[in-house]
Amino acid sequence: MGRSRTVAGVAGVRERILAAATELFAEQGYAATSVQQVVDRAGVTKGGLYHYFGAKEDLLIEMYRAVFGERLAALDRIVGQGRDPEWTLRAIIDDIVVGTAAMIKESAAVSRELAAMDNERTQRLQADWRRYQETVRGLIRDAQEAGVFAAVASPEIVSWSIFGVTNSLHTWYRPDGPKPAAAIAEELADLVLTGLRA
Amino acid sequence: MGRSRTVAGVAGVRERILAAATELFAEQGYAATSVQQVVDRAGVTKGGLYHYFGAKEDLLIEMYRAVFGERLAALDRIVGQGRDPEWTLRAIIDDIVVGTAAMIKESAAVSRELAAMDNERTQRLQADWRRYQETVRGLIRDAQEAGVFAAVASPEIVSWSIFGVTNSLHTWYRPDGPKPAAAIAEELADLVLTGLRA
Repeated sequence: MGRSRTVAGVAGVRERILAAATELFAEQGYAATSVQQVVDRAGVTKGGLYHYFGAKEDLLIEMYRAVFGERLAALDRIVGQGRDPEWTLRAIIDDIVVGTAAMIKESAAVSRELAAMDNERTQRLQADWRRYQETVRGLIRDAQEAGVFAAVASPEIVSWSIFGVTNSLHTWYRPDGPKPAAAIAEELADLVLTGLRA
Repeated sequence: MGRSRTVAGVAGVRERILAAATELFAEQGYAATSVQQVVDRAGVTKGGLYHYFGAKEDLLIEMYRAVFGERLAALDRIVGQGRDPEWTLRAIIDDIVVGTAAMIKESAAVSRELAAMDNERTQRLQADWRRYQETVRGLIRDAQEAGVFAAVASPEIVSWSIFGVTNSLHTWYRPDGPKPAAAIAEELADLVLTGLRA
C-alpha cells in the first residue's frame, strides 16, 4: 500500500489515523474502506486506532466535527457581532466557502456518507446543521421583514442557493485551480446580495 | 415485506421492478438492497428481473436516465427556441426544479449512489451531465459578454447556485408540502435573474 505523502507528513498518531481515513474514504468510499486499510496507511497498529476511535463510524463523525464544528463556531462569532444583514451574510458566505474549501477531502467523504447513516449520534450532528441553516434563514427573514433585503425569494431558497454551492464544492473546487476560495465566496456573495438588494 | 401501494399500482413488470428498486434504494441505500428484495417487493421472479436488467447496477443507471434524460432533452428544446437569455434561463430553472421534484425518490437514490460508482457506463452519464452544465454556463457566459447579464459572478458560480438547489432538493422538498415545485422554481429564477440584472 505505502503511505501517502500527506499522511506521512502528519505528526501525532490520532492525526495520522484521521488523515489516512480521510484519504481512503475520499478515494474509495466509507463502506469499501476497512479498519485494516486505515491502520496500514497510517502506519499504526490496530490497538493504536482503537485507543482513539471505538469504531470506523467514529472516524467519520470526527471528520464531520472537523469540517462542520468550526463553521458553526464561526457562525456564532459572526452573528454575535450584531452588524447589518448584508455584512453578516457576506461574512457567513466567506467563512463557509473558504472553510469548506480548506477541508475539501473531509467534506467529500462526509457529504457522501453521512446522509446514509441514521442513528442517535448522526441525528445530533444533523441537529447542529439544522441550527446552522435556521440561523442563516432567520437572518434573511428578519432582514426581509425589515425591508433591508428584498423579498425576491424565500429564506429557504436563498439559503439553498448558498449551501448548494458549498455542498457541491467538493465536486468541482480544486485547491490548485485558478480561482482561490475567497474569490468564489466573493462572487457568490455578490450574486446573492445583488438578488436581495431592496 | 409486502408490496407497497406505489409498486402495487404500477402496471408492467419492468416498471414494477424499477418502482420497487427506487423505493428500496431511497429507503435503505443501494449497497444494502439485494436483488432478492427488489424481486420480493415488485412481486416478480428473479428470472423476470434478469430478463430486463442484467445486474443491480442497471437499475440505478435506468433510474438516472429517467431523472436526467428528460431534463437533457428539455434543455435542448428550450435552448433550441433561440429566445433571449432571461427567458431561456428561467425556462431551464423551471424545468430542472419541477422535473427533479416530480421524480424526487429517484433523484435521492441516484444522487446518493452514482457519485460512488466509477466505470465506463457511469462516465458516459457523467459526460451527459457535464454537457448540461456546459450548455447552461455557455448561455450565461454569452449573455454576460453581450452585456445582457451583469458579470456579477462567473458562469460557474451562477450555475452552481442553481444546480445546488436542485441537487439538494431531495433533502428538503416534500411533494405534499405547502410550496409547489413551480413556485420554488420561480423564486430561484427571480433571485438569480435579479442578481444578473445588467
